[in-house]
Amino acid sequence: MSSRPPMASLADRLLASDRAAVAESLNCIDDQRPAGREQALALLAALEPRVGAAGALRIGVTGAPGAGKSTLLDACVRVLRQGGSTVGIIAVDPSSQRTGGALLGDRFRMRSSARDPGVFVRSMAARDRLGGLADATHGGIEILSAAFDVVFVETVGVGQSEADVAGQVDTTVFVAQPGAGDLLQFMKAGVLELPDIFFVNKADTGAAAQRTASELRAGLGLGEQKSADWAPPVLVGAARDGLEVDSLLDHIHRHRALLEETGRLAALRRRARAEAMLRSLLHRYGTWGTDRIGGPDAIRERLEDERTASIFGLHTVLSSEIEGAN
Amino acid sequence: MSSRPPMASLADRLLASDRAAVAESLNCIDDQRPAGREQALALLAALEPRVGAAGALRIGVTGAPGAGKSTLLDACVRVLRQGGSTVGIIAVDPSSQRTGGALLGDRFRMRSSARDPGVFVRSMAARDRLGGLADATHGGIEILSAAFDVVFVETVGVGQSEADVAGQVDTTVFVAQPGAGDLLQFMKAGVLELPDIFFVNKADTGAAAQRTASELRAGLGLGEQKSADWAPPVLVGAARDGLEVDSLLDHIHRHRALLEETGRLAALRRRARAEAMLRSLLHRYGTWGTDRIGGPDAIRERLEDERTASIFGLHTVLSSEIEGAN
Repeated sequence: MSSRPPMASLADRLLASDRAAVAESLNCIDDQRPAGREQALALLAALEPRVGAAGALRIGVTGAPGAGKSTLLDACVRVLRQGGSTVGIIAVDPSSQRTGGALLGDRFRMRSSARDPGVFVRSMAARDRLGGLADATHGGIEILSAAFDVVFVETVGVGQSEADVAGQVDTTVFVAQPGAGDLLQFMKAGVLELPDIFFVNKADTGAAAQRTASELRAGLGLGEQKSADWAPPVLVGAARDGLEVDSLLDHIHRHRALLEETGRLAALRRRARAEAMLRSLLHRYGTWGTDRIGGPDAIRERLEDERTASIFGLHTVLSSEIEGAN
Repeated sequence: MSSRPPMASLADRLLASDRAAVAESLNCIDDQRPAGREQALALLAALEPRVGAAGALRIGVTGAPGAGKSTLLDACVRVLRQGGSTVGIIAVDPSSQRTGGALLGDRFRMRSSARDPGVFVRSMAARDRLGGLADATHGGIEILSAAFDVVFVETVGVGQSEADVAGQVDTTVFVAQPGAGDLLQFMKAGVLELPDIFFVNKADTGAAAQRTASELRAGLGLGEQKSADWAPPVLVGAARDGLEVDSLLDHIHRHRALLEETGRLAALRRRARAEAMLRSLLHRYGTWGTDRIGGPDAIRERLEDERTASIFGLHTVLSSEIEGAN
C-alpha cells in the first residue's frame, strides 16, 4: 500500500521499463470512459517532467500497403537491438476489429523479435467508432517513450493518420514501392510534404526502384523545402536483405541530432503535446465548448506557451473552465 | 426579388442541373463559419424531400495511389456519357492545400471530360485543420445527387475517409493494383471489408493481375459475407483500354437494383444522413455536449427514426436542445 498517487508509481515503473507497467498504461490510455481519460491524463502529467523534451527517439514509418513497412521495421529493430537499444512499436491499425486487428496481431506475433523483452509491440485503432481520431496514439507514443530508447509508429496507408502521426514524431520515413506510382500520383496523395526521409524499397527491382527514386527527387525539388537545413534524402534499399538499413538509421539519428542542436526538438514536443490536448478538448467539448473560453486558437496558444509548466495538467484546468463557463 | 427562402430557390436551380447553382451550393457547404453551416443545413433540408431516398446513383471509388482510380473513373464517365447520363465527381483530397490540392485540380482540368457540361468535378479536403472530418463530403454528395444522374466519390489511399465514404454511397468499388500486396496485406489494410465490387486493374500484367484477383477472392471467402445476397465480384480489367468497364458498370447497376428491391436503399440513405448529422453535432458540441441530451446513441436513434420527417431539420432542433440544456 503506497501513499503516493497510483499514477506516479505507475510512471516510476514505466521509466524502469517494466513491461507489465507498459501494458497497464496502454490499457489506461485506451479506456474511453471519463474515469479512464482522467487517469490517462494524470499518468501523462506524471511522466511529462521526467521524460522531458528529449527522451526516446520517435520515428514514424508510413507508405502504401505492400510497400514493405513491416519488413523494414523488422530490419531496423534487428540493427537497433544489436546496438543495445530497446524498441517500442505502435502499429496504427486503420481496419476494424472484425478482421484486420486480429490478423495484424498475428502478424506481429510471427515476428522474430516477438519474444525479445527489449521489444514491445502494440496495435492501436486509428479511429473511434464515431470518427474522432483516437487520442490514444499520442498517449501511446508518450508511454512507450518513457519505457524504451526508440519508438516506431507504423501507419498503414496514406491518409489522415499519417499527417497526425508526423506531428508526434521526430522523423517521418516514407517507404515507397517501386513502380507503384508516378510523380503526379505521389503529389496527388500528398506524400511529398511530410516525410523527412524517403526509402525506396525493393532495390532488386533495379530500374523500377531507381525510377521511383528519381520521381521522388524531382518532386522534392519542385516544392518548397520543409526545412532550410534538411533536404529529405531519398534512399534506395531492400528491407528484406537489410540493404541501406544502416544508412537509414544513420540519417534518422542525424535528423534527430539536427533537431536537438537547433533547439527545434523541445518546440516540436511542446507543439505535439499541445495539439494532442487541443484535440482531446475538441473531441470532448466540440467547437461550441472551446468557443466558451476563447476558441481553439486561444487554447492552443495557452497550451504551447513556454511558461506552461504542465501541458497535460493544463488540460484539466481548461476542461473545468469550459464546463464552468456560461 | 423572390419571396421564397433563398435556399429553396437554390434547391430548385440545383434540381434543374444548373452548374452555377452546383458551384454556389458547394461553396456554401465548404463554408465553416456558423452562418455558412446554417445555410448549408437549410439547403440540405430543402433538398431532402425532393431528392428522396433514391435519387442519383452514388458510387465510391477507392484504392491505393497509383492503382488507376482516376483512369477507371474517366473510362466509366465516357461510357455513362455515351448513355446520356450526367455525372458529378467528388475527389476527396487527403493532401494539404499547399501542393496536392492545386495539382489535383490541374489533373482534372486535363481530363477529356473537363469541358463537357454533363460532367462536374470538385475536389474536397478530407479533413479540416483540427482533424475533424469535414462534414463537407456528405453535403457535397447530397448536392451533386440533386443535380446529376450518377455521383462518384473518389478517395485516395486506404484509411479513415474510405470507411466514412462507404457509408455515404450505394456501392463501393475497390481498385486493386496487381502485385502491390498479398492477401495478408489486403487484410491488414482492411480493404476486404468495405467494397461491394473489386476491380483488379492493369489486366495486361497478366499473371500478376490474376494472382491479385485470386488473393482477393480467397480473402473474401475467409471472412463473414457483408451481405447474404451479394457476393462481391472480383473483376480483372484495364481502365486505360476500357476493358471490363462495361461489366463494372453493369455490376454497379445490379447492386443498386438489389438495394432498391430489398428496401435497403431507403434505410441506407437514412443512416448516411443520420450519421452525417450526428458527426456534425459531435464536431460542434463534443461528447460533453451530446451527453447533455442523452448521448450519441440516443441522438442517432432519433435521427434514424422512420418517423423523423426531416433529418436535416432535426439537426437544428437537437442543436437548440443541447445549447439550452444544463
